Amino acid sequence: MAKEKKLVEAITSMEEDFAKWYTDVVIKAELIDYSSIRGCMIIRPYGYAIWENIQKHLDNKFKATGVENVYMPMFIPESLLEKEKDHVEGFAPEVAWVTHGGNEKLQERLCVRPTSETLFCDFYSNIIQSYRDLPKLYNQWCSVVRWEKTTRPFLRSVEFLWQEGHTAHATKEEANERTIQMLNVYADFCENVLAIPMIKGKKSDKEKFAGAEATYTIEALMHDGKALQSATSHDFGDGFAKAFDIQYTDKNNKLQYVYQTSWGMTTRIIGAVIMVHGDNSGLVLPPKIAPIQAMIIPINQTKEGVLEKAFELKDRLKDFKVKVDDSDKTPGWKFSEQEMRGIPIRIEIGPKDIKNNQAVIVRRDIREKIFVSLDEIEGKVAEILDKMQSDMLERARAHRDAHTYVAKNMEEFEHIINEKPGFIKAMWCMDEACETEIKEKTGATSRCMPFEQEHLDDHCVCCGKPAKVMAYWGKAY
Amino acid sequence: MAKEKKLVEAITSMEEDFAKWYTDVVIKAELIDYSSIRGCMIIRPYGYAIWENIQKHLDNKFKATGVENVYMPMFIPESLLEKEKDHVEGFAPEVAWVTHGGNEKLQERLCVRPTSETLFCDFYSNIIQSYRDLPKLYNQWCSVVRWEKTTRPFLRSVEFLWQEGHTAHATKEEANERTIQMLNVYADFCENVLAIPMIKGKKSDKEKFAGAEATYTIEALMHDGKALQSATSHDFGDGFAKAFDIQYTDKNNKLQYVYQTSWGMTTRIIGAVIMVHGDNSGLVLPPKIAPIQAMIIPINQTKEGVLEKAFELKDRLKDFKVKVDDSDKTPGWKFSEQEMRGIPIRIEIGPKDIKNNQAVIVRRDIREKIFVSLDEIEGKVAEILDKMQSDMLERARAHRDAHTYVAKNMEEFEHIINEKPGFIKAMWCMDEACETEIKEKTGATSRCMPFEQEHLDDHCVCCGKPAKVMAYWGKAY
Ligand SMILES: [Zn+2]
Ligand SMILES: [Zn+2]
Repeated sequence: MAKEKKLVEAITSMEEDFAKWYTDVVIKAELIDYSSIRGCMIIRPYGYAIWENIQKHLDNKFKATGVENVYMPMFIPESLLEKEKDHVEGFAPEVAWVTHGGNEKLQERLCVRPTSETLFCDFYSNIIQSYRDLPKLYNQWCSVVRWEKTTRPFLRSVEFLWQEGHTAHATKEEANERTIQMLNVYADFCENVLAIPMIKGKKSDKEKFAGAEATYTIEALMHDGKALQSATSHDFGDGFAKAFDIQYTDKNNKLQYVYQTSWGMTTRIIGAVIMVHGDNSGLVLPPKIAPIQAMIIPINQTKEGVLEKAFELKDRLKDFKVKVDDSDKTPGWKFSEQEMRGIPIRIEIGPKDIKNNQAVIVRRDIREKIFVSLDEIEGKVAEILDKMQSDMLERARAHRDAHTYVAKNMEEFEHIINEKPGFIKAMWCMDEACETEIKEKTGATSRCMPFEQEHLDDHCVCCGKPAKVMAYWGKAY
Repeated sequence: MAKEKKLVEAITSMEEDFAKWYTDVVIKAELIDYSSIRGCMIIRPYGYAIWENIQKHLDNKFKATGVENVYMPMFIPESLLEKEKDHVEGFAPEVAWVTHGGNEKLQERLCVRPTSETLFCDFYSNIIQSYRDLPKLYNQWCSVVRWEKTTRPFLRSVEFLWQEGHTAHATKEEANERTIQMLNVYADFCENVLAIPMIKGKKSDKEKFAGAEATYTIEALMHDGKALQSATSHDFGDGFAKAFDIQYTDKNNKLQYVYQTSWGMTTRIIGAVIMVHGDNSGLVLPPKIAPIQAMIIPINQTKEGVLEKAFELKDRLKDFKVKVDDSDKTPGWKFSEQEMRGIPIRIEIGPKDIKNNQAVIVRRDIREKIFVSLDEIEGKVAEILDKMQSDMLERARAHRDAHTYVAKNMEEFEHIINEKPGFIKAMWCMDEACETEIKEKTGATSRCMPFEQEHLDDHCVCCGKPAKVMAYWGKAY
């Protein structure tokens, strides 16, 4: 018992200190480790296996829409980064600079890519000549670097992993359609696979990507009531095309600029999975993304026949990702570990169960104990995992809806922000001054102007002038 | 015809200029493009799809041996790189240095990883405490940077993609077994999937990895008679463990150093595929690694029923990677493109074929035309691809064997090097002075001391003193 206590006691409770709970979980569940490089994390096997699952799902979805993968250099010459004015202003202050190669000083310094718009544009300007070359639908999986001052595992780090899609189109309409299409790919993936419901919408001008005409976002609500931007999709119009001179000859033999998009999701989304689904015993992983879906834990495993039965069960459950914990730890210790790592179900099997031709399945999320006949265990496991997946989504949705409030004036807004962490829906005149004032007074930022608009009031929550749009607001990661 | 000619004429013939042929192929087959960063290449969709296939095959093989994937930071602090003396001497002259983050000068400069031994060692020293923590079998897929002066697509570039495995073991024997095990994984993959036969052996002390006790290698012979080191596996003994203080308590509660290995394969192997199998019409891809295995080319596609039949065929061949080229180019142009891209077979189908219930299959490697009844096309395609895969391996083996020579003295050695490019088998005293002399006189390096030894003579090919070992020698990429 001493050992079991140790493992569980090692996590701070969410209610006591959510930030501490979060870092305890990422470390104790062995998702990441700190490295000796400031702000760079080591993604350990269990954390990386989650990322590999995310990659597989997303990559298949991308390819189904015609996207092809490429690999671009990790360095960007300073002169290339400077080609698009807004873009360089947004990124130059936070890049890492390579100044020496071997023992020689470089003639022009190179930054480690913070994002690769400039590289893709340079490439596109070389390979796009005619309308026959369009569209180009390229994506890459890589790491990028942003010299952040304050960092947190998965949520904000100097180096992180992501995918970045970059497309070029013949028309403005096609580019905008692609922007929305990819936003929907992300939102569907988050809902169907990660069990996280998303608010889809458009970013304000203040919050949009450096160089974009419009940025679209999906926003999720974490357990502590803070928002997390989970993926973005940018419509560039022909701004980059003009800066990089990317032109094609159309069917009438006329030169035209292309229209471009970019869209990305990062390892940050693993932080969302932790903060939406986790509890005071550790991680809770949605079955569809879990590297291990079921842990078989033998009870009295030294008794004759128990381990054999456990491995027989594993063989029968080959359609799922199943492991047997046959280490010499106590069952209680094994339960704690399975819970800490968020493995969706555990299957307990001991001498009594074998005698009764049954096993006990315990769901990680609600800890429900289900006695299952061994004759029908394959079907039952499938059923329980399915149910858990959909329950997790519905629970996350219910939590979000219960923590979404309406504010009609600043008094209400400030009261909610201080008393009830969550999303605030409020009308807005779309003036940046109001956005700035709200941020200064409350710490909340505009998360997005959702596609699903509601008319809550006629007046801007801040200035009282006529409102143009409803926006979601909140404190954010 | 003018257009077709243009595409074909654009490649220099191998016999005229092999190096030029090679770069023509990588560009014309759209595997890579040059970027505006010196020595860094853009891997285009077709090239990247080959790399994705290589990754899938290797990653499965690694995992089957218990390997887990992780992700380590891309930066190494200078002080960490300096911890192992031989290692830093080997790599420091060719790394890229980050000196500034954002607008600030860093207190300690960071290099972009040229390889990650130092990072893994630092990590292992933190997470390995007891014999229960061993072995650690980690791998990562990433890009690395080496500040090379002269670069060539895939073969030598400033940035390249690879995987690097890093393992830690309780005993010297176990580490050595793992080193050889992974060398065999690489060799089997190259033979069975890439159709490239390999010489397996040990590197000389002069040629081994900086910091390794022993380096093992697989060496292939290119079409022009030059050798290409295709993967390496290093046995570190406890050298890194001592430099980084990686110790564990054994079962008797005694502190022991771990024993380590590392092993890697890079995008360079794509260069080997090109230079072993390619011909004067372009790339020839082994069916098991080809992103597209069969291109269906409709003949007289405007005639009623032809395109329908082509797509019907594609649907029937869903077990293979098949595309239909329904563009408005001429069949001849399409043939040239399919050949340039090395697509293993093309399937021609026109009105006459449809009438005769047949299709014409043409193998890319030997251009054999095979008339196949549509009734049995699935089986025939499988059979032809299988045969092509094994024929390619045997042809590569025959070419290598026909270009492997024996030299018993320096006169013979020099004659062969100047007249008959290929591998030279020769006895060696194992003295580094002879190795250096051979390199200076002939330009050939010791490729490896093969596991399959032969006793060709009693004397060293260079100094005439008693020989200790047979080695392979050759000019290399
Ligand atoms: Zn206002
Ligand atoms: Zn000698």
